[in-house]
Amino acid sequence: MAHARIKRIDASKARALPGVQAVLTYQDIPRIPYTTAGQGHPEPSPYDAVVLDNRVRFVGDRVAAVAADTPELARQAVELIEVEYEELPAIFDPEDSTKPGAVLLHDEPDATGIHDPSRNIAAHIHAKVGDPEEGFKLADRVFEGTYHVQYVQQCPLEPHVVITYFDENDRLTIRLSTQVPFHARRIVARVTQIPVSKIRVIKPRIGGGFGVKQEILIEDICAWLTKVTRRPVRMEYNREEELRSSRTRHPQKLVYKTGVTNDGKLTAMTLKVLANTGAYGSHALTVQCNTGSKSLPLYRCDHVEFEAVVVYTNLPVAGAFRGYGAPQGLFAQEVHLDEVAHALGMDPIELRRKNLVQVGDSPPLLEELGEGKAGFKQVILSCEMEECIRRGKQAIDWDKKRSRAPAEGSRKRGVGMACMMHGSGIPGVDMGAAYLKINEDGSFNLQVGATDIGTGADTIFAQIAAEVLTVPADKMIVYSSDTDFTPFDVGAYASSTTYITGVAVKKAAEQCRDQILSVASNMLEEPIDNLTLRDGRVWAGNERSLTLSEIALYSLYQSEQFQIQGAASHFSYHSPPPFAAQFAEVEVDTETGQVKVLEFVSCVDCGVAINPDGATGQIEGGVTQGLGYALTEGLVFDEKGKLLNTSFRDYKILASTDMPRMTSILVESYEPHGPFGAKAVAEIPIDGPAPAVSNAIFNAIGVRMRALPFTPENVHRALKSPREQDIEKRKSEPALTPG
Amino acid sequence: MAHARIKRIDASKARALPGVQAVLTYQDIPRIPYTTAGQGHPEPSPYDAVVLDNRVRFVGDRVAAVAADTPELARQAVELIEVEYEELPAIFDPEDSTKPGAVLLHDEPDATGIHDPSRNIAAHIHAKVGDPEEGFKLADRVFEGTYHVQYVQQCPLEPHVVITYFDENDRLTIRLSTQVPFHARRIVARVTQIPVSKIRVIKPRIGGGFGVKQEILIEDICAWLTKVTRRPVRMEYNREEELRSSRTRHPQKLVYKTGVTNDGKLTAMTLKVLANTGAYGSHALTVQCNTGSKSLPLYRCDHVEFEAVVVYTNLPVAGAFRGYGAPQGLFAQEVHLDEVAHALGMDPIELRRKNLVQVGDSPPLLEELGEGKAGFKQVILSCEMEECIRRGKQAIDWDKKRSRAPAEGSRKRGVGMACMMHGSGIPGVDMGAAYLKINEDGSFNLQVGATDIGTGADTIFAQIAAEVLTVPADKMIVYSSDTDFTPFDVGAYASSTTYITGVAVKKAAEQCRDQILSVASNMLEEPIDNLTLRDGRVWAGNERSLTLSEIALYSLYQSEQFQIQGAASHFSYHSPPPFAAQFAEVEVDTETGQVKVLEFVSCVDCGVAINPDGATGQIEGGVTQGLGYALTEGLVFDEKGKLLNTSFRDYKILASTDMPRMTSILVESYEPHGPFGAKAVAEIPIDGPAPAVSNAIFNAIGVRMRALPFTPENVHRALKSPREQDIEKRKSEPALTPG
Repeated sequence: MAHARIKRIDASKARALPGVQAVLTYQDIPRIPYTTAGQGHPEPSPYDAVVLDNRVRFVGDRVAAVAADTPELARQAVELIEVEYEELPAIFDPEDSTKPGAVLLHDEPDATGIHDPSRNIAAHIHAKVGDPEEGFKLADRVFEGTYHVQYVQQCPLEPHVVITYFDENDRLTIRLSTQVPFHARRIVARVTQIPVSKIRVIKPRIGGGFGVKQEILIEDICAWLTKVTRRPVRMEYNREEELRSSRTRHPQKLVYKTGVTNDGKLTAMTLKVLANTGAYGSHALTVQCNTGSKSLPLYRCDHVEFEAVVVYTNLPVAGAFRGYGAPQGLFAQEVHLDEVAHALGMDPIELRRKNLVQVGDSPPLLEELGEGKAGFKQVILSCEMEECIRRGKQAIDWDKKRSRAPAEGSRKRGVGMACMMHGSGIPGVDMGAAYLKINEDGSFNLQVGATDIGTGADTIFAQIAAEVLTVPADKMIVYSSDTDFTPFDVGAYASSTTYITGVAVKKAAEQCRDQILSVASNMLEEPIDNLTLRDGRVWAGNERSLTLSEIALYSLYQSEQFQIQGAASHFSYHSPPPFAAQFAEVEVDTETGQVKVLEFVSCVDCGVAINPDGATGQIEGGVTQGLGYALTEGLVFDEKGKLLNTSFRDYKILASTDMPRMTSILVESYEPHGPFGAKAVAEIPIDGPAPAVSNAIFNAIGVRMRALPFTPENVHRALKSPREQDIEKRKSEPALTPG
Repeated sequence: MAHARIKRIDASKARALPGVQAVLTYQDIPRIPYTTAGQGHPEPSPYDAVVLDNRVRFVGDRVAAVAADTPELARQAVELIEVEYEELPAIFDPEDSTKPGAVLLHDEPDATGIHDPSRNIAAHIHAKVGDPEEGFKLADRVFEGTYHVQYVQQCPLEPHVVITYFDENDRLTIRLSTQVPFHARRIVARVTQIPVSKIRVIKPRIGGGFGVKQEILIEDICAWLTKVTRRPVRMEYNREEELRSSRTRHPQKLVYKTGVTNDGKLTAMTLKVLANTGAYGSHALTVQCNTGSKSLPLYRCDHVEFEAVVVYTNLPVAGAFRGYGAPQGLFAQEVHLDEVAHALGMDPIELRRKNLVQVGDSPPLLEELGEGKAGFKQVILSCEMEECIRRGKQAIDWDKKRSRAPAEGSRKRGVGMACMMHGSGIPGVDMGAAYLKINEDGSFNLQVGATDIGTGADTIFAQIAAEVLTVPADKMIVYSSDTDFTPFDVGAYASSTTYITGVAVKKAAEQCRDQILSVASNMLEEPIDNLTLRDGRVWAGNERSLTLSEIALYSLYQSEQFQIQGAASHFSYHSPPPFAAQFAEVEVDTETGQVKVLEFVSCVDCGVAINPDGATGQIEGGVTQGLGYALTEGLVFDEKGKLLNTSFRDYKILASTDMPRMTSILVESYEPHGPFGAKAVAEIPIDGPAPAVSNAIFNAIGVRMRALPFTPENVHRALKSPREQDIEKRKSEPALTPG
């Protein structure tokens, strides 16, 4: 059942099974509230969970944990645990959560004021710029549309897995698939009451994260089992558990309203969101902040409002998922603007161009909703949005395809596009640090707390340090993410790694460079100002030079010996947005509702791409996930809240064979706050596929898809309904209020 | 046989044995000369070995290496290797090495000029202060004695062991029992031609070193076997191999000559040494330098000369062994002075006191023979030698015991003493470095390249950092000796670890402290000058304070985030000598020659003892080894140079049950160059037991033992010979020349 109180739990039979090492229920461990969100929070942070509770809040919630000699024995023991439940009413529709008399999911008050458990509200956000009511008065026409996005899961190919053991010094070692090793250490310390100093967290190479590994989901249980058994414990999710019991993307209902002049200038924009966080609310506030901050500021408008109500339901838990709220907001916004352009009889690109944010702008919502510290103005210093659009139009052959005559037969083609922005880290919050030392062959050991989850971050860092030191990147031996050996880092999220930790690496490399020049100055008996470092050598003029190996050997063995080494940190008050335009061409079969994406073009301004191949890989991966969001993915529940699609047979993620021709173009700008001009690229490519495909479907068949995903079933149903919902409103009509 | 050329070697049958993975002979790998000595040498260093040669130079030398699936198979394969030798004449007596026509052990010339293979000379050292001939003229009386010290082995309880494998990044990992991980990396890189950047060396907790693990003895072979098989290889010495094929202490013949006035002032001192380095000469120069530099400078004298000739023989190889030449030199010197005092009718302590070095002195030989860089004057800034003598005399009850009447019967008791000095690292050569970062609970990770070989160095570093940061030492998580993660360090030798790396740790901790104060200044809104750090808190006055955890959390999460971290190096042009006086009371059975040590007192000035228990442990361990040197240890060979005592049954090291009552007194001085006033303590306690016991034997039975060890057999033989050799010489008689 989806919601119940545990009246009685008896694990004695399970414990008696030979080979069972431990069984834990809520009766066995202290009730310490904490947040599962691995994010840049100091203690105390808003709690949203306890390790084991006397209550289940969704099908897939924790009841008990078993450690046994084999997985088979553990499963057998689970069957032997007797539980008597008192079933409670369950809420599955977020619209019901805040209704008077609704059953409350959480009892504890929240000291930080983020959650309001007395109303089933996990977060409530409201931000306003100017006076939207005035803005609507200035408009010639007002439009309002309602959009829906579904539950999807991050689907890393490697599900959650963790191994815990006490090492020879009796310190708890946690080897795990995570994006946030340092937060894992902090949170496990809190819930197991083992001091931080007695815990080591190691992140080996892992099989993807996409946000779902930004939380502490099984590490706490695994650590507890090691704590009570004193033995190594391995815990992992199978695919069903990953889909059901880890984390998902927040489903939302979004009401987008705009006021525009007849020539297409935006006078007012409001976005009201009702979001479903499921049974727990770890990322409730920040994801929904992002829904507003990564969509509305993309266009210039003096009167803007954003409101989001995030409610609890008895369904799987939403958390961080690549894009982090932005794909939802941008789906609503970019479809809505397509609708507005259509109503105005304008090319949707022209409508956008009239309103796009420009270099030098400082959209207030970027600061207010930016999750980061208040009081730091965000100014756009790099933006090649116009060029992204120009090159994307060209690549997809926009003008020709938009003006072509409809095809004969049931297969109709169309093109659509969307614009998007994202961020580069959480301003004033994210930080990274690096330590770098030279070896006697002129190679370097680089240690960073930053967490490469398959993005190639380690390679980027090698390139950055190598660039400063003018050596090939393979001279850098990178080790990342081990709380004992690498300096602190907030972890891999918010597209921050290159932008934040990259600068820390650059600073550490510059410290080494300065020391190298100083040693070379002694060796060559030349003032530092006469020396240049290039091609891995220090040159005095063009004749005399020393290799880094010679300099290292001298400094380690010869005279006034010391280790050439650098240690540096970085954080930023700025989160420069990358920008992108994405274009889709689709073919829709009007008989079956089947949507086939024929071509997909992404033009991305991520500043200077430090590793263009890596950046392109990020774009292609993001498009793959974004098209899955658009076309096939979605958790399906029965009427009791039980997940029905529990494997990749029933939950369809796109494989390379499902993908259209992809064109990914890096449109370079230079971001002054980033390392060597770089901004982020990790999340933005997932933001646009859904609206671009929706808009292309409309262009193909004149049917407006306002709800994800565009399965044949959903498209077919839309084909049968009135071909166009009237989104135009009377100007005085108030916008819908969520919740 | 002890000396031969390999005429033919055929490993084909061994290779054909199923389960054999590789067989290496000199034909299979390039002949790259290198030095096995893991020491602070830059490349090029004097070579003394190749991995596999077409020649064997002692019984126990390398011929071939086999890797197989099991040790049994490997042994079987070894038997299948066919070798045809051309036997060469062998030299076992070092007096024969330099005779005209003697067979030469080494063919290659030595570019560095340290070795002279054309005369079988591995090193020749000559240093003179003043004019000894003039000095002898100023003397009232001149004495000369000849002393002999034997072959002994370091006998770490864990013999050499190494595991090599390629890791997932195809980098060669070497996990081994070593004192010098960074030198192991450098030397293995050289001989395997794998770049330094592709090698990682890890030193786990190990079972002792005592100098024998300061060389690269099996690592090169093991790495080669992994290189050719691409598989993990484990190689270890059994006790027989450890005794025979690793390294030993240099046997020496020492001729000590002094000129003294009638009232006991030294006018001239000369020490001439003939040392046997065995078949290879890795440490030939430096060990014998130490024989001079750690003995002669202990006493004030204007006219001093030291000469050492180190020759090759076809016997096991001498290398580094705790004390590193000093136990030999001090045995000769401290026995000789006892003889001189006896001849003068003085108390031997009084003779020493008249001549001891004093604070402010700058003995030239300390600089000339100090192994370190030339041109750096060594000034004694801390010396509690007098107090060591005073407290030792008291503890052993010297005056009473020296004046007691001889006992009845065959069991005679006597007391003797010796003075000694040592060094603290190699001046201008040794260096260490440290990296330290704070964790959010106010604990710290400390990374040092320095190598704890069981001495407790890691604990000392924790204490040093903790002292600076005013926290308990268990707040320091120390990780040492991993070339990937810890900064460079020369390794554990020359009593340098606390003195050199300890200062690097202190500097890194001070960097962290300064950053902590700076963050606290922001948090408390007080200028740094108003803040004090004590008891793990930063205080503004006595009311307001912050814990280090609060400061760490603030700096990592709250404002202007950064990692509080420090990275520092240290080297020193100074090698401040620790000083000690050791006293023995013995009972000698004149019927059997059995010497029983009843009591042993060590008074050691090691500056400020950072860890008094650890320092006392060092003293007790050193005394244990020193008494083994004095009483029982010694390699015994047959007439073909084959080692006869190949196990601890036949080679007797002292166990705790063999030990006398030990009194170890730390006599504190404050050394301004050391961390918190510390000097070294690791080696000095091994220097004095042999002469102190010899002098006590003389006091007991009037027999002068000038050769080690004092086995019942040797003592009994001395009892039968004339009771006192006349050491007095005519003033004009020239001193013997070694070699």
